[in-house]
Amino acid sequence: MPGDQLDPWGASAIKDYGRLQSEFGIEPIDSILPKFPRLSSHIRRRIDFGQRDLARVLDAVANNKSFAIMSGIKPTGSFHLGNKMTADDMIFFQSLSKKAIVYYAIADVEAYCDNGIPFKDSAKLAVLNVADALALGLDPDRTVVYFQSEEARVMRFAAIFSRGVTNNMLRAIYGERPIGLYLSALVQAGDILMPQLPEFGGAKPVLVPVGADQDPHIRLARDLAAKYHDDFGFILPSAIYHRLSLSLNGQTKMSKRDASSSLTLEDPPSLASKKVLSAFTGGRATEEEQRRLGGEADKCPVFELYSYHFDPDDDHVNRVHYECVEGIRMCGPCKKEAAALVKASLEEQQKKRDSLMSDARELLVKSRQYLRTSPEK
Amino acid sequence: MPGDQLDPWGASAIKDYGRLQSEFGIEPIDSILPKFPRLSSHIRRRIDFGQRDLARVLDAVANNKSFAIMSGIKPTGSFHLGNKMTADDMIFFQSLSKKAIVYYAIADVEAYCDNGIPFKDSAKLAVLNVADALALGLDPDRTVVYFQSEEARVMRFAAIFSRGVTNNMLRAIYGERPIGLYLSALVQAGDILMPQLPEFGGAKPVLVPVGADQDPHIRLARDLAAKYHDDFGFILPSAIYHRLSLSLNGQTKMSKRDASSSLTLEDPPSLASKKVLSAFTGGRATEEEQRRLGGEADKCPVFELYSYHFDPDDDHVNRVHYECVEGIRMCGPCKKEAAALVKASLEEQQKKRDSLMSDARELLVKSRQYLRTSPEK
Repeated sequence: MPGDQLDPWGASAIKDYGRLQSEFGIEPIDSILPKFPRLSSHIRRRIDFGQRDLARVLDAVANNKSFAIMSGIKPTGSFHLGNKMTADDMIFFQSLSKKAIVYYAIADVEAYCDNGIPFKDSAKLAVLNVADALALGLDPDRTVVYFQSEEARVMRFAAIFSRGVTNNMLRAIYGERPIGLYLSALVQAGDILMPQLPEFGGAKPVLVPVGADQDPHIRLARDLAAKYHDDFGFILPSAIYHRLSLSLNGQTKMSKRDASSSLTLEDPPSLASKKVLSAFTGGRATEEEQRRLGGEADKCPVFELYSYHFDPDDDHVNRVHYECVEGIRMCGPCKKEAAALVKASLEEQQKKRDSLMSDARELLVKSRQYLRTSPEK
Repeated sequence: MPGDQLDPWGASAIKDYGRLQSEFGIEPIDSILPKFPRLSSHIRRRIDFGQRDLARVLDAVANNKSFAIMSGIKPTGSFHLGNKMTADDMIFFQSLSKKAIVYYAIADVEAYCDNGIPFKDSAKLAVLNVADALALGLDPDRTVVYFQSEEARVMRFAAIFSRGVTNNMLRAIYGERPIGLYLSALVQAGDILMPQLPEFGGAKPVLVPVGADQDPHIRLARDLAAKYHDDFGFILPSAIYHRLSLSLNGQTKMSKRDASSSLTLEDPPSLASKKVLSAFTGGRATEEEQRRLGGEADKCPVFELYSYHFDPDDDHVNRVHYECVEGIRMCGPCKKEAAALVKASLEEQQKKRDSLMSDARELLVKSRQYLRTSPEK
């Protein structure tokens, strides 16, 4: 991957979040904190570190105006912790206003192309993914779920946009890529801009919560919104960026590619616990060294389990961090504590999810009905 | 355009049809003439000169097996003579068997991208284009018309195929092109392969009648059918190729780009007559020279009006050709005769078409209903 581009399809962790601001123009989140009616733990902890035009969305919240939140998932049968972070943000912003509508795309075309998952299987797996999102707190009464493969509006946008971009523009954003990846980027731009179609109430703020590596997709969607403003009246979509979750090997970003180094909401809790116990940590070579130098909490995927994912208590997260970097807390007991936290959290999530499977099915049916009867304007 | 590729988007006429056989593997039509139960005037006159796997379709005719005929039109408000040639072929093959179903794509996404025609306007223009096809003889009881922008199945194929082709493969077929044209080629491959989906009866012969310059699209669709055979059970689609109609300036192929040099089924008959009278011909510099050397009928767009488009009488076409090349027939009277033939033909076509507008609307409604209720399998 060329060094000057972010790679939304790659496995690399991001070393320097500051560069995203200086080079790509992602704004820090700090400047607009006063606009929030309340903060999520991701924002308080600056796991959500950056934004573009988020003020537009917060103004809609303040003025009780309609806005949309757009996100999606590739239905491969598991909801890994990176997906969970995006879902948490989506759900937090939905909870800020009764005027917020979530559009949730099931990326079944990508699941087919990348993972060979047949469309029928995607439809089944989607039920599980949606039930997971409901268990995390998604409000089904203000959510529209759709399958990319069924939504001609999204595909039509992709086709239109493909005629409005130049190969050079795509190369500048993504580097030299196979046409299929370019097209999947254009489909995602279609996803992001669809909520602004007249049949969904027309132009409005749209918030896209993403991992920092997905910024190229946001830039493309914003470029296209500007380019097609006269045709469709688009407002530039907004984004909030979260830090990437480290895989348990500590090297790459967490993804489904390496199952042993990633945690998913579908992992049997005892397996998840075992993965945590054998995770890479920010610990030193010897206990003596660790007591002397302190651990490297900020490079530790186990610390992330507390701070990014499972520990709702800010004070406790701060204490874990302090004890680690001061050399008070050793990795063995810390991993045990994290493993127990992960195990309990997954048990609770999975119990909730199982009880919400029929709600998930109902939401899918209701959404399909809504989309088929939304007359195109 | 690089010299070693055909350009489906360009304006060039084809100088050497023989090259299409030696270089690209289009088969001559002659070898399979005995398989036809009867011949169309296009075939008798070798205006339809080439084919790929047409025997497969003729076997289906002979054995009373299902097959599909796939074609389309960009709804820009006129049906030019190139479109008419394709439609004539489509209708001829539909007439050969009660088991033939026509799938007719309205390329409204391309009309939007290339010509800025809004989707609503395409929907209106499509009625006119369909009525023209009905007037030419299309049987509405065995025709499914769809809008590319509404048919998620086609777009889904385009997305899938985009992940299955390499940039090199597309460059080899089309040369270096903007991504939008590559995608439109993939959408057309989706059009061509859609009739083989399970909900339309599964794998079957599909005939695509095209102008010779469209062969790259046929090769791409056939490559993709082979590549995705295991996933979808595709049979390689078949094609029949017609010669390109010359524009009235005698230089380029007939297209909508140059209205004064092309004829459309929507032209007011008296205007069409005037265009013919001022057309380029295959005549010589002086009458004396023409009597001595004879005219060049085979380079003459006026002779094409007889042979390709409007004269149903083979004997008369042969006589016009003979009189021209023998220096007996002069361009002035020949153009007058052609102009009268065109005028009468268009008057009849337009009268028929006007009486079929409500049938066209009905076919569009019926098709949409059918496609929406065809459960995906």
